[in-house]
Amino acid sequence: MEDATDDADLSLHPLLAARWSPSVFDAADEATSADVGTILEAARRAPSAGNAQPWAFVVGRRGDPVHARLVPYLKGSSRPWASTASLLVANLCHRFVEDTDWDYSEFALYDLGQAVAHMTVQAQALGLFARQFRAFDRNGIAAEFAVPPHWEVTTMTAFGRVPGDAHRPVANDLARPRRPLTDIEWPIDTA
Amino acid sequence: MEDATDDADLSLHPLLAARWSPSVFDAADEATSADVGTILEAARRAPSAGNAQPWAFVVGRRGDPVHARLVPYLKGSSRPWASTASLLVANLCHRFVEDTDWDYSEFALYDLGQAVAHMTVQAQALGLFARQFRAFDRNGIAAEFAVPPHWEVTTMTAFGRVPGDAHRPVANDLARPRRPLTDIEWPIDTA
Repeated sequence: MEDATDDADLSLHPLLAARWSPSVFDAADEATSADVGTILEAARRAPSAGNAQPWAFVVGRRGDPVHARLVPYLKGSSRPWASTASLLVANLCHRFVEDTDWDYSEFALYDLGQAVAHMTVQAQALGLFARQFRAFDRNGIAAEFAVPPHWEVTTMTAFGRVPGDAHRPVANDLARPRRPLTDIEWPIDTA
Repeated sequence: MEDATDDADLSLHPLLAARWSPSVFDAADEATSADVGTILEAARRAPSAGNAQPWAFVVGRRGDPVHARLVPYLKGSSRPWASTASLLVANLCHRFVEDTDWDYSEFALYDLGQAVAHMTVQAQALGLFARQFRAFDRNGIAAEFAVPPHWEVTTMTAFGRVPGDAHRPVANDLARPRRPLTDIEWPIDTA
């Protein structure tokens, strides 16, 4: 049922319908600097509460020095596949007002999530798939790139093309089942 | 400079490039149930950490009972325009494990932001613009729709068509300036 519903829904925009989070990337493909610029531009234009724009990104293209400095902080579970993606991005959230424990914005994490979503949609339009992950050394990356305590290295995203034989899975953990629509629409008490 | 850059960037996907957050909606337009279903489907398919899917949505179409129950909780600053949108959605976040103060997911807010971003991209593909806002009575909506304490009514989104004479502003607070790309790409110490 779940799979039939997923496949039958043709009304979703192709950029969203075709999206999945691969853990295999084409290790020969290279991201162009134009592609990287467009992906960052998508984040830059994302909406945020009070226009706070609580985001920043450490951007490494495979083969460049930033990428080489990011890879050692990938944890074992992510390193085999994330290191082969053409683009590795550490997603930084402006969590606190500097030198305080006051939230910079109540919506900082929410807004970072949106900005990253915009990046993944733009990447998809460029033929680049994305997988977000948390399996990395957060403190290590913060130290490596001089990220101060009021910023957080929240997540990372691996972007890349997928090999021709890597098809979107239907029934395994890369295309994991979703709660039904009747569950995500909050039940309304009509009494 | 800012505006010239914004307008000149033609490489961004049209769904992202054309996006803005209107505060004027066509009060005669009605959202179809098919459109609403597709927008919810976009959220349903969004990625989330550990596939936690920490989201749910109170969905009101203008003219239906849920919409009528949402409007009284809009605060003065949002009510004039949000109440005229064809679709009002309260975005709920699964913040805590029930009856505890333990995070349901470290990424609950981040993931809700992503799901809402996917909804706004899908809406844009249907010709519906979106504005997210916080000017509503959070506790009031929670009580009205029996949202328990481990869920949070985080934000709301107004979706709708815009009147023909409402053009995307370039230089006012609806098209607010963004930090430059050189600022959102984290500066790298190359020493």
